[in-house]
Amino acid sequence: MPRLVMKFGGTSVADLARIANAARKVQREVESGYDVIVIVSAMSGKTNELVGWVDAVSPLYDAREYDAVVSSGENVTAGLMALTLQEMGVPARSWQGWQVPVKTTNAHGAARIEDIPPDNIAAKFAEGMKVAVVAGFQGIGPDNRITTLGRGGSDTTAVAFAAAMQAERCDIYTDVDGVYTTDPRIEEKARKLDRISYEEMLELASLGAKVLQTRSVELAMRYKVRLRVLSSFEDVTETSGTLVCAEEEIMESKVVSGVAYSRDEAKMTLVSVADRPGIAAAIFTPLAEAGVNVDMIVQNISEEGRTDMTFSCPTDQVTRAEKALDEAKAKGTINYHGLIADKDVCKVSVVGIGMRSHAGVAARMFQALAAEGVNIKVITTSEIKVSVLVDRKYMELAVQALHDAFELENAA
Amino acid sequence: MPRLVMKFGGTSVADLARIANAARKVQREVESGYDVIVIVSAMSGKTNELVGWVDAVSPLYDAREYDAVVSSGENVTAGLMALTLQEMGVPARSWQGWQVPVKTTNAHGAARIEDIPPDNIAAKFAEGMKVAVVAGFQGIGPDNRITTLGRGGSDTTAVAFAAAMQAERCDIYTDVDGVYTTDPRIEEKARKLDRISYEEMLELASLGAKVLQTRSVELAMRYKVRLRVLSSFEDVTETSGTLVCAEEEIMESKVVSGVAYSRDEAKMTLVSVADRPGIAAAIFTPLAEAGVNVDMIVQNISEEGRTDMTFSCPTDQVTRAEKALDEAKAKGTINYHGLIADKDVCKVSVVGIGMRSHAGVAARMFQALAAEGVNIKVITTSEIKVSVLVDRKYMELAVQALHDAFELENAA
Repeated sequence: MPRLVMKFGGTSVADLARIANAARKVQREVESGYDVIVIVSAMSGKTNELVGWVDAVSPLYDAREYDAVVSSGENVTAGLMALTLQEMGVPARSWQGWQVPVKTTNAHGAARIEDIPPDNIAAKFAEGMKVAVVAGFQGIGPDNRITTLGRGGSDTTAVAFAAAMQAERCDIYTDVDGVYTTDPRIEEKARKLDRISYEEMLELASLGAKVLQTRSVELAMRYKVRLRVLSSFEDVTETSGTLVCAEEEIMESKVVSGVAYSRDEAKMTLVSVADRPGIAAAIFTPLAEAGVNVDMIVQNISEEGRTDMTFSCPTDQVTRAEKALDEAKAKGTINYHGLIADKDVCKVSVVGIGMRSHAGVAARMFQALAAEGVNIKVITTSEIKVSVLVDRKYMELAVQALHDAFELENAA
Repeated sequence: MPRLVMKFGGTSVADLARIANAARKVQREVESGYDVIVIVSAMSGKTNELVGWVDAVSPLYDAREYDAVVSSGENVTAGLMALTLQEMGVPARSWQGWQVPVKTTNAHGAARIEDIPPDNIAAKFAEGMKVAVVAGFQGIGPDNRITTLGRGGSDTTAVAFAAAMQAERCDIYTDVDGVYTTDPRIEEKARKLDRISYEEMLELASLGAKVLQTRSVELAMRYKVRLRVLSSFEDVTETSGTLVCAEEEIMESKVVSGVAYSRDEAKMTLVSVADRPGIAAAIFTPLAEAGVNVDMIVQNISEEGRTDMTFSCPTDQVTRAEKALDEAKAKGTINYHGLIADKDVCKVSVVGIGMRSHAGVAARMFQALAAEGVNIKVITTSEIKVSVLVDRKYMELAVQALHDAFELENAA
């Protein structure tokens, strides 16, 4: 039998009625000939309740105990889903992470999956079981204790199972009906994409389009797992959702597939840095050591042996960055006249694998922004992406202008 | 280090404040020199919530999935208790049943503990851990799936750990402060007992005094585990609670230790049964096969080859008993003129190991009841117990009369 992985997030299993709704989607896939591995999250709100208790008891908690407590939410949903399927006449049983086992690293609270031996579940499929319901987000570490994979970990569980059990596809059921050319709340002309490549999805995921967890997309790309994002609250048809797949599966790729944005970036400028060989290393090494995720970097043209260095980092890391730089200055490893943090910015990006073979995307982007009077503060590019930092007040305008400029309302 | 088992029921860990209260009691025992194994129930209400979901999804549920869902409540408490102890500076960690492992039979929903290898926990004690917090009520079956032990199973878990880990004592913390000579709600002169023998506690537990689960007392008796019942909501002193222990530890045993009652008994009478050898077997075999728990049995004197046969069984099994007897009559294996079920009765019992060496307890009991005008319908006795069935309206009166007659207000 071909195999299919179906993952249901917290809002898709929020109560017994929604679990039944999800189970009916599973039943339909079984009827069309699949052996199905269902990955479930905790009923929405449950994980927050458990995390709240742990935080209240112990602000600096033992992550191993945190994992033991918090993983219980997924176990409840897994059992209830198996029972619901059985009631519908579908042979099903539940597995907790340690039962499969989902073997992970020992990094409690943020563990990585290392191995999923497929034998136990495969043996049950061979005996006639049609659905294996697996508690997402959790595994077992080398110390025989329960681990969790961190926020959004159930997506990663789903992709890992699809790879380990050689599933034909991994369907991620969520509360949106797919991946859009941009956020429909900002640009009403945004269109759902039928297909998108792993590379593009990865850029969109890490740029703030919160549909899929970045790690799960990375994993899907590495193991060539075909990933479909679709809504639990709509009937499923051939064209439902968005398929995240290899470039080769996308017939005619557009130059630009989507416009992403992020409000969580801050711009920091070191004013009048003494310019000498090794200065970039002297600045960014202490930042890396302090755990600051530096994204964009721009160095001004040097004048009289001094220059300005600008970079961006997540807003909530600004204090940490300032501290690291002040300490480096105090130690004398760097020298600057001022440090300016600007949190009133945002990052807007255009993403598309077509850029590889089409020149002029950046120029078209800058023209579109200039035509609307949006001033660009920092620019960064990758093979399939161009990002700019602009004043936050221009965010919606920039997104709309770029959506128009690349004619994304005609995407599909 | 000597070891101690401490078990906290659902009301004792109902919220974070109560978990902290329980943890302080554990801390005190650690400070006085014990390595402690703490057995926890689910926060009160949680198990009912989980059971409610399972029932709603699947009235005739798969017991293996039921166990997977319902056991999660204890896991949450175990983790929270370990974290709370760590916050107090007490080295603690949690174990789920499968991690210990608590090996059980495969009877999901009503499994029996078969083995608890002490090595894992003992090794951690040797490394300096002071408290092992274990999720009660659960284990792992031979099929590597989670099992539960049935209602009140956490008491059984506690006693089994005390036996497996050679604990000095097993303290059961609950919402009452000990075992009483009778129910204080019925007889205000009821006194807390300092000590009671396993045999007496077993009679009291199975007769309706709901302090300890019968199975846990049986297990304690078999493995000579000293069991103390005490309140989580009071300070613990030398004389707190009631010690359930071997007869030898009780200096001077009273003839009668307590008066128990049960409202859940019904009296059934088969009128005019054809009296012949084997008639009792013909009646009680189909009842046993139908799962009816027959308690008392009385056979009238035979007249003209016919007799009346009276027995008692739990009220909620009356319908089942009637069906089994009607079927036997239809098959012709028994013959009777009428079947009368009387649910308006109750069972009142006096219990005491002193009865073994003191004659006349039954006579004194019957006199006390006669003096109050209470008519006795059925009598049954064991080595350390005399039980009578009386009209339900006399229950309080009978309990009070017997409490007086055996001078239990002077017990201690």
